[in-house]
Amino acid sequence: MKVSELGEFGLIELLANIINNARDPKSKAWKRVLVGTGDDTAAWQDDGSVQLATTDSLVQDTHFDLALTTWEDLGWKALAVNLSDIAAMGGIAEYALVSLTLPSELDTECVVKLCRGMVDIAGKFDVAIVGGNIAASEKVNITVSLMGSLQGKIPLLRSAAIPGDLIAISGYTGLSAAGLLMLKQKRKVDDESARLLTEAHLRPVPRIEQGQRLLKLGVKAAIDISDGLIADLEHVCKASHAGATINKDLLPIHPALKQYFPSEYESLAMAGGEDYELLFTAPQKIMEQAKKSLECPVTVIGEINEGNEGKVTVVDSSGRIHELKKSGWEHFESMT
Amino acid sequence: MKVSELGEFGLIELLANIINNARDPKSKAWKRVLVGTGDDTAAWQDDGSVQLATTDSLVQDTHFDLALTTWEDLGWKALAVNLSDIAAMGGIAEYALVSLTLPSELDTECVVKLCRGMVDIAGKFDVAIVGGNIAASEKVNITVSLMGSLQGKIPLLRSAAIPGDLIAISGYTGLSAAGLLMLKQKRKVDDESARLLTEAHLRPVPRIEQGQRLLKLGVKAAIDISDGLIADLEHVCKASHAGATINKDLLPIHPALKQYFPSEYESLAMAGGEDYELLFTAPQKIMEQAKKSLECPVTVIGEINEGNEGKVTVVDSSGRIHELKKSGWEHFESMT
Repeated sequence: MKVSELGEFGLIELLANIINNARDPKSKAWKRVLVGTGDDTAAWQDDGSVQLATTDSLVQDTHFDLALTTWEDLGWKALAVNLSDIAAMGGIAEYALVSLTLPSELDTECVVKLCRGMVDIAGKFDVAIVGGNIAASEKVNITVSLMGSLQGKIPLLRSAAIPGDLIAISGYTGLSAAGLLMLKQKRKVDDESARLLTEAHLRPVPRIEQGQRLLKLGVKAAIDISDGLIADLEHVCKASHAGATINKDLLPIHPALKQYFPSEYESLAMAGGEDYELLFTAPQKIMEQAKKSLECPVTVIGEINEGNEGKVTVVDSSGRIHELKKSGWEHFESMT
Repeated sequence: MKVSELGEFGLIELLANIINNARDPKSKAWKRVLVGTGDDTAAWQDDGSVQLATTDSLVQDTHFDLALTTWEDLGWKALAVNLSDIAAMGGIAEYALVSLTLPSELDTECVVKLCRGMVDIAGKFDVAIVGGNIAASEKVNITVSLMGSLQGKIPLLRSAAIPGDLIAISGYTGLSAAGLLMLKQKRKVDDESARLLTEAHLRPVPRIEQGQRLLKLGVKAAIDISDGLIADLEHVCKASHAGATINKDLLPIHPALKQYFPSEYESLAMAGGEDYELLFTAPQKIMEQAKKSLECPVTVIGEINEGNEGKVTVVDSSGRIHELKKSGWEHFESMT
């Protein structure tokens, strides 16, 4: 079977099974693991605090088109997508390693700009870039590994949603995918909207502080919606052995999205991906505190249900069920 | 200037300067950093112990040819090269993240075999593979990040060699590059030598235990000779602001190398690269203990000198200076 037939998530599950089945029960390293493959970051119990680590790659012509991004923005985003995974656990980001593969014909000035973009966001979130690796390749590949820690004993988890929990997301959804469409199709939008959409796609701001605040408030379940709102909510439902219902009329859609993408904004918001907002679930009381406490919009869009394990039902305000064509971004799918 | 003109090590230095110049003196993360860019791994002081982290990539058609390796061996090697970096610090390897980029047409069975090879070596060195990432790309890229810790306060460093220290290496040198030549050129060698050379190239065994033992014995300076013996000794000399003299007639050359590569064995041993042996320096007394204590050959090949900063002088037993054509492996160089 080809990788494209099994798909990204099928392949991850297959490999995770091989890894977990081979675990030596006497292993000192495995004994300390709190979260292995299958959440936004790994987590283990250190002598002192809980440690977090995650890795994510940006691959030329898969994740980015050099005609549509600056090198500074690319450096920013390569670290931002990893920061977002730490945010989804409620963690503190600390140390980064950067592995670059580059064509030998590339101008060094491009790599300098890439590095400056990374240093820029690293400074803003107090991350020390402590090492890395450079190798030759035909196309650019930027793989960042980010390590951090937790103030608390248990991170925000995909598997901790409970039936009855409300489901909320931070900020707006669909802006990044709309930004990509705008850049690719050279759509004309007003300057302010252009800036908003471009930044959402090329220079996302991870919700690090918000994740930490959610953890402190007692929220248990979260994920970042990098794969797309519905796809990531499905990940939460699957990991939590529950279902979810969301009301598409409650989705936080930015006015610019409605104005310039009138026929597409709903699908962009539900399945666009790369928003790097947090989706989290909590009982109503904690949700009220989160709304007051987070310095960004917090919008309740639905509820976790018993049964229908791993399934997300989308309804509108009249209660009518909405059929989904696509729940989110899946690697390999787009390339076949 | 093109990346190929500046070269791998020039580019690393350039980026390290940008990163270090942007360090915020109030940063909590940077305050704890003991070793940043420029050694085999990064190191920082945690609440308890010293933490280590490293990353290394294997890139299709740069580091490996799918016609010459099995997928199991590729998985083994991707983790082994990172383990070797932890070994060079005297560290304990603990947690790994694996970032794969794969062509969508690839058979999943190949990825399963790759994973089995990784799980195999992970089990042998008690490493927990705790997460990763999979994305689509035209060619295979395997980037592993490996985290670990230290029993002790200061790791083995490239920068800790002192004039008067003897220079030694573990095991044999040149076997991996000879293995690659044998495989590429389909050279006929006896079965035992074929196994030795193939394993040296495709399935290297990192010197984890040896690194830890050296640290305990009081050795201060080490590096793994992945870039080539002379190139890596130059890295030690540069970081330690010293020079070095080695006697090429003392190099530990395996009989099989002399037998099958009679005109090439010296250059393979000095500049072949990918040996994953440890080069270390220490005063004579500690060196004697290392020879007795390590469960592998330990060969003294020269001495650290004052002056000639960053320079390695190669002599023969008659004292005649030997001019080097190439000191080791350098990315980009081979592609121009």
